[in-house]
Amino acid sequence: MPGKAVQDCYPEEFANCYGCGRLNRDGMQIKSYWDGEECVCRYTPKPYYTGGFPGFSYGGLISSLIDCHGAATASAAKLQDEGFTLDDRPPSRFVTASLKVDYLKPTPLGTVLTLKGKPLDISNRKVIVAVTLSADGEICAKGEAVMVKIPDAETSP
Amino acid sequence: MPGKAVQDCYPEEFANCYGCGRLNRDGMQIKSYWDGEECVCRYTPKPYYTGGFPGFSYGGLISSLIDCHGAATASAAKLQDEGFTLDDRPPSRFVTASLKVDYLKPTPLGTVLTLKGKPLDISNRKVIVAVTLSADGEICAKGEAVMVKIPDAETSP
Repeated sequence: MPGKAVQDCYPEEFANCYGCGRLNRDGMQIKSYWDGEECVCRYTPKPYYTGGFPGFSYGGLISSLIDCHGAATASAAKLQDEGFTLDDRPPSRFVTASLKVDYLKPTPLGTVLTLKGKPLDISNRKVIVAVTLSADGEICAKGEAVMVKIPDAETSP
Repeated sequence: MPGKAVQDCYPEEFANCYGCGRLNRDGMQIKSYWDGEECVCRYTPKPYYTGGFPGFSYGGLISSLIDCHGAATASAAKLQDEGFTLDDRPPSRFVTASLKVDYLKPTPLGTVLTLKGKPLDISNRKVIVAVTLSADGEICAKGEAVMVKIPDAETSP
């Protein structure tokens, strides 16, 4: 995958997230890459993120991945919308206002999960994103999120 | 809180969830208690479940807690609807068909989080639940989920 991961360009004070923060050593440290149209993340969950029944992911992992990858999608899409790339300057950081996830089928563990995110609408402070999560070529879950931009100069959430 | 936790009564083969499985040693092992009208869980997250900005929870933890506690709420409410209690027999296990979370304000870490779940509708195989998540007496997030019952005899998800 070419280029920098979105999360590797977040301002340091916002890079501590358990799901996607490069500074969180206990976390999942997912990496999302923007190709100009969509944002892609590939991630193989640790085996202990099992659901009630072994061998399949717990629902919270699915929603966490869609949430964090959705925030990265919003960051990258907004940056491009403003005429910049990740090589020009750090992207703005987005937080989730609302998240909707549909669980379509059990998500297997022990295989790579692929997340694809697209912006549905970009406005001044808000980006609405759609995200799919696939395993072995099949979509297991899909989500939609309303992401809100943290003002670039702000240093508290 | 009186009585047994819902999760301590799940059938063993469905008790491995990272969020709420009593058999998952790496997981959060949340405990939800049914009082006849609502389901309550109190949980203090580990400090590494931080969001991008330190001192506040990451969004995925919020959705995970609402999801797992919502499933417990569905289990307990369905069991009562069938005329039983946790002392009579194990509750049915529910999985999430869809989840919607609204993040109302940043959720602080370092304090106990209180989740309250209520059934909105109980039908043969489905229970719709509403869940709130509070910290220091303020609601930080609320969710709604459609939970689907796994047939009691079934042993795969």
